[in-house]
Amino acid sequence: MSREAGVSESSVKQIVLASRPKGPPTAENFRLEEVPMPALRAGGLLLRVLYLSLDPYMRGRMDDRKSYAKPVGIGEVMIGESVCEVVASDRPGYAAGDIVLAHTGWRTHAAWDGPASRKLDPALAPITTALGVLGMPGFTAYAGLYVIGKPKAGETVAVAAASGPVGSLVGQLARMVGARAVGIAGGAEKCRYATEELRFDAAIDHRAPNFAQQLAVACPKGIDVYFENVGGAVWQAVLPLLNTFARVPVCGLIAHYSGGGQVAGPNLLPATMREVLTKSLTLRGFINYEFSAEHFAPFLRTVAAGLADGRIRYREDITNGLENAPAAFIGMLEGRNFGKTLVRVAH
Amino acid sequence: MSREAGVSESSVKQIVLASRPKGPPTAENFRLEEVPMPALRAGGLLLRVLYLSLDPYMRGRMDDRKSYAKPVGIGEVMIGESVCEVVASDRPGYAAGDIVLAHTGWRTHAAWDGPASRKLDPALAPITTALGVLGMPGFTAYAGLYVIGKPKAGETVAVAAASGPVGSLVGQLARMVGARAVGIAGGAEKCRYATEELRFDAAIDHRAPNFAQQLAVACPKGIDVYFENVGGAVWQAVLPLLNTFARVPVCGLIAHYSGGGQVAGPNLLPATMREVLTKSLTLRGFINYEFSAEHFAPFLRTVAAGLADGRIRYREDITNGLENAPAAFIGMLEGRNFGKTLVRVAH
Repeated sequence: MSREAGVSESSVKQIVLASRPKGPPTAENFRLEEVPMPALRAGGLLLRVLYLSLDPYMRGRMDDRKSYAKPVGIGEVMIGESVCEVVASDRPGYAAGDIVLAHTGWRTHAAWDGPASRKLDPALAPITTALGVLGMPGFTAYAGLYVIGKPKAGETVAVAAASGPVGSLVGQLARMVGARAVGIAGGAEKCRYATEELRFDAAIDHRAPNFAQQLAVACPKGIDVYFENVGGAVWQAVLPLLNTFARVPVCGLIAHYSGGGQVAGPNLLPATMREVLTKSLTLRGFINYEFSAEHFAPFLRTVAAGLADGRIRYREDITNGLENAPAAFIGMLEGRNFGKTLVRVAH
Repeated sequence: MSREAGVSESSVKQIVLASRPKGPPTAENFRLEEVPMPALRAGGLLLRVLYLSLDPYMRGRMDDRKSYAKPVGIGEVMIGESVCEVVASDRPGYAAGDIVLAHTGWRTHAAWDGPASRKLDPALAPITTALGVLGMPGFTAYAGLYVIGKPKAGETVAVAAASGPVGSLVGQLARMVGARAVGIAGGAEKCRYATEELRFDAAIDHRAPNFAQQLAVACPKGIDVYFENVGGAVWQAVLPLLNTFARVPVCGLIAHYSGGGQVAGPNLLPATMREVLTKSLTLRGFINYEFSAEHFAPFLRTVAAGLADGRIRYREDITNGLENAPAAFIGMLEGRNFGKTLVRVAH
């Protein structure tokens, strides 16, 4: 990667929400625009985006319904976190050439006068990890598993999207406390990666016709922690395997995001509530940042140490060019990514 | 109530499960039998049942499916807890005339050689309270509300079956910590009882056509703790009112027990999971006895004190005669009881 600090560009590319998707998003829901380069604001930074993070939660922001954050408006730039280079700074402590983390959205440059940006040291870890294993996805895995799930040695932890940035860390963190890690992923290659590279104890292909049966075989002592990031059919296969007092941190429901057929019957709610009742289950939804104040620093220490000594591994799925972000995002929602989805915006 | 201690009877009446209900139970699912009086067993007690407790969980035991306890077999005596008088004792510390709590099931007499029975002091509290406000239903309310729900002053607690033995105590315990108590009950009389006698802040009739709207009005600051003991349509009305970080102890799902139409679509699970996720909800199923070791003694102290100084009130719905237990049970599942459902077996 070559970075041309201080290069002068006259315009900024950005991707806006052109229309709201009905079901899975398509290319037509996005529009690439070119706008004038913003000026450096008083007390702010002028940023050039190097890497943009694409994450499943962004799908929710494309809908016009109340969630934990307000939706992206039609014609507004898609939201997102990125690793940026400081082009110009009017903020003490930041200088041109610094690498920072910022919520710029899907654009090539941004004038930033928001809260303090976390400065990254490229010598400590590859800067892209701040969007993955050492960033929001990694902390989601850490907080959900260790703060809510609390697996004990000998227990079984199951997680879907096991080759993705959250799931892959959930399994590796589970093994670090002596739990059995069972991954669920789409396709033989991702399953092989989970067991051979990430050292999950087992990985099951959710596309297999006898998926539920295979999952049961992989969890001979049931499931004590199910880290829920997909919902849908995987949840239905997990539900009968949950042990009494099992914990279910819920950090995402990618299978529901585009609403495909989920409202048609049968009504699966009574069966879920019955298991909650008779097995004394805990279901706990969460957003990673509710735990930041107390747990972000120990997370960074734990995962950085795991990366350093090889107990933790990760994989990135990098697409080149901001103009290709919509296709990469759509592919990620369909499970076509393999590892943390990133867009290399400047190169 | 007159009790003729030591009266000699030649036979025992008992009610057995004649057949498994399909949907709501009917009289045909039960059979009254007469069997010989059992003999006092070595180290045991011979008990005469005075009051039998009827509780919603018994409906689950009538089905042939795995739950937290094994089902009642066809031809077996219906399970249940009762307040009994000791007729004869071969157990140190127990003498004829003592009043004890035992799991005798639906019968007039029982030979008991199970675990130690809790002895009741009729001078301290009416003996029937050991089956209600000072017994399993009361402890269910206490543990679910205080251990899982943890309401704070100024928060809103909602509970259904508000005139019943669990719901009525949930609301009164909520008020004791300064929370707003909103009850849901079937019919104007039960609602009036909840507000006037039990001093709930509001009570809503779930049979009202605009029930969901009325509930929203009664919870102007949303709901922080919903004590779930009914499920079904009440849950659907509660769900949109739950605040971020709301807690939902789940102790029962009476609306689901007889399965009426619950599996027909639409599929309500995705909407519930979405709220769990976006509002960081905690759903926690529980059985009261998982908390007994740590919390039963403080429960007894707290509730006995509340009864003594009038902050806690209760109501009993007593049916006379074991032969009328099936009708009382069926009526309770339909919400026709008003207060804790008991059967006076001996009088």
